[in-house]
Amino acid sequence: MHLHNLFAHLEAHTGQEQLDTLLSRPGLKIERIVSTGQASPPGFWYEQEQGEWLVLLAGEAKLVFEDEASPRDLLPGDFVDIPPKCRHRVEWTDPEVATVWLAVYYE
Amino acid sequence: MHLHNLFAHLEAHTGQEQLDTLLSRPGLKIERIVSTGQASPPGFWYEQEQGEWLVLLAGEAKLVFEDEASPRDLLPGDFVDIPPKCRHRVEWTDPEVATVWLAVYYE
Repeated sequence: MHLHNLFAHLEAHTGQEQLDTLLSRPGLKIERIVSTGQASPPGFWYEQEQGEWLVLLAGEAKLVFEDEASPRDLLPGDFVDIPPKCRHRVEWTDPEVATVWLAVYYE
Repeated sequence: MHLHNLFAHLEAHTGQEQLDTLLSRPGLKIERIVSTGQASPPGFWYEQEQGEWLVLLAGEAKLVFEDEASPRDLLPGDFVDIPPKCRHRVEWTDPEVATVWLAVYYE
């Protein structure tokens, strides 16, 4: 699939999150992520070598950082910079609509 | 101003485009641009040393590439990767609403 619009092809085919790489350069990747109810498995934490600048563009999600007491509720337009090694997980995404994320992974 | 949402603080203060740096790292900058009717001056072409991955998130714009016959009409969600040195200009942005861009400049 060759995407030209972030809100195109939102259909959930498999029950899995849908990942599309939009740009790939040394030390940089821009990815679209489409979630429809998926969340991180219980007890799972992302702990990435790269930094991740992340914006939610449609839908809704709850993002948890290990060092924060309560989840962050993300609505369209909300963005966050996740430093390398910062442990976080996706607690919840809206099961009723497509949640569209744009992630910029950087070194 | 400390932005947390791409669609916050869209007011046009000065008649100029509004630029907010959201992330700055060696070889990488993520910037929000808010236009309200601004366009590139006649005859002006951007010709940047860095690549620019650009997405329009609200509003509407016409982007011209020197090597293309007609402008590209950009609507919300439309994105484009502009390689280094690729001459381009903003022909038009909607004067009635805020046009919100997210630009990722990379080396």
